Amino acid sequence: MISSTANAQIKYLVKLQEKGAARREDKVYVCEGRKMFGEVLACARESIVKAYFAESFITEWGSVPENMAHISGIPYETVADHVFGEISRTVTPQGVLAVVRQPEYHLDDLLSEEQAALRLLLLENLRDPGNLGTIMRTAEGAGISGVILSRESVDMFNPKVIRSTMGAIYRMPFVYVPDLAAVAVGLRQRGIMVCAAHLEGSVAYDTVEYPRRTALMVGNEANGLSDKAAQAADLRIRIPMEGEVESLNAAVAAAVLMYETYRQERAGKANRAKI
Amino acid sequence: MISSTANAQIKYLVKLQEKGAARREDKVYVCEGRKMFGEVLACARESIVKAYFAESFITEWGSVPENMAHISGIPYETVADHVFGEISRTVTPQGVLAVVRQPEYHLDDLLSEEQAALRLLLLENLRDPGNLGTIMRTAEGAGISGVILSRESVDMFNPKVIRSTMGAIYRMPFVYVPDLAAVAVGLRQRGIMVCAAHLEGSVAYDTVEYPRRTALMVGNEANGLSDKAAQAADLRIRIPMEGEVESLNAAVAAAVLMYETYRQERAGKANRAKI
Repeated sequence: MISSTANAQIKYLVKLQEKGAARREDKVYVCEGRKMFGEVLACARESIVKAYFAESFITEWGSVPENMAHISGIPYETVADHVFGEISRTVTPQGVLAVVRQPEYHLDDLLSEEQAALRLLLLENLRDPGNLGTIMRTAEGAGISGVILSRESVDMFNPKVIRSTMGAIYRMPFVYVPDLAAVAVGLRQRGIMVCAAHLEGSVAYDTVEYPRRTALMVGNEANGLSDKAAQAADLRIRIPMEGEVESLNAAVAAAVLMYETYRQERAGKANRAKI
Repeated sequence: MISSTANAQIKYLVKLQEKGAARREDKVYVCEGRKMFGEVLACARESIVKAYFAESFITEWGSVPENMAHISGIPYETVADHVFGEISRTVTPQGVLAVVRQPEYHLDDLLSEEQAALRLLLLENLRDPGNLGTIMRTAEGAGISGVILSRESVDMFNPKVIRSTMGAIYRMPFVYVPDLAAVAVGLRQRGIMVCAAHLEGSVAYDTVEYPRRTALMVGNEANGLSDKAAQAADLRIRIPMEGEVESLNAAVAAAVLMYETYRQERAGKANRAKI
């Protein structure tokens, strides 16, 4: 059992929790909590490098033989409770975390030509970890095929992002790109309609008939999309707003747009079934 | 100038920032930051009890507040910067906050019979301050008439809620009620259709034709709506989800529903205009 915060593995875990550069260097991240650990076991078991269990967690959870069978073959360490408190980044540590290999997607993985329907989400310079996590969760729910982020956006493996994805991080393909506007142009050349969310968009988002191959583009929380990115789109779409609201929260705006394309996709499917 | 954290006003401000009971007792709250102060000046000027400006903020402004037309007549105090840091609840204090009288709405204010369109949002036991603030902001954008909350929900005057409303708190009527299910039944008796968001809802939210007098009901982040509240509704509606997502974030779910009713309201208006 690891009983000292001076242990090299503990120091490494703290570094992984705090430093994006350390995570990138080793291409790993930390997933924490019972739900997230359960999800990684179910969705990405082979990516687990090592699990860490608090002593009290093993006493309680590990006393059930089925639980231990469930994790057989996964390397793990037991950690004294006070040491676990050091590596945890949650208010109420649940006594379980794991170092997991980062998934690696390539742009081409997200652009499979096979699917008749391809709905992408492009994010420029998103900064708030909670917003990004919520967007990933919503994207999975709305049947988005993949998420493309500008390189300046918040790190997907930030502990707050991971937590607020509620597991979607294991299932939703994503890729960071150096030039989002160039990617938008590339998508158009492949016949994907690119629609940019913009406060001064010329059309209301819900008057557009989205083709089955569509990409939605949403910008930074404070400044929206850059001119360069907005101009790279086929269309600038606007979410109508009453009152004196200046803009919607970025995760809300993305959700409203994704769910409108999903609504149309489902309505179209129902119509195609009738024919 | 107030230069000591032992000053009675400073102690009072700290109490207001931290204790819902203290805010309720005096029926006031604290609004903080340039944007929020600007909004309260514009929307609820007469509610300002007193403003507090950090010394450096006044220096930067280059003029004393009584000489500035838009804040002349508002009682204020200047506060030393290090003392302002004590009363601020933001990471980067902007040097301005104000004690503001709480607005008081009554259920009947929200149920005006005059409006042909009445779209309400009912929230049961919402816990996360950021979610509530975001919902208020989205509600204003989506043209919601008012928000009704169960008494157990997070306090609307919690500093985090206020901040994430981005000003909607000054404009969106809301009321806390002891028995949300009873209110839902009362709404139905007034001819308002009550639709409850529910993971096991019998109909997809976007296949419902919402009448112009509609109430949407959304539940707690972890547990959704209580059976009692869900059963008080006319209809249980479901937001379809792909993948393995168990549920959407509460603010996202509320946004998707509110924007669907708003979409239908606008489409209906366009049709009514044609006739």
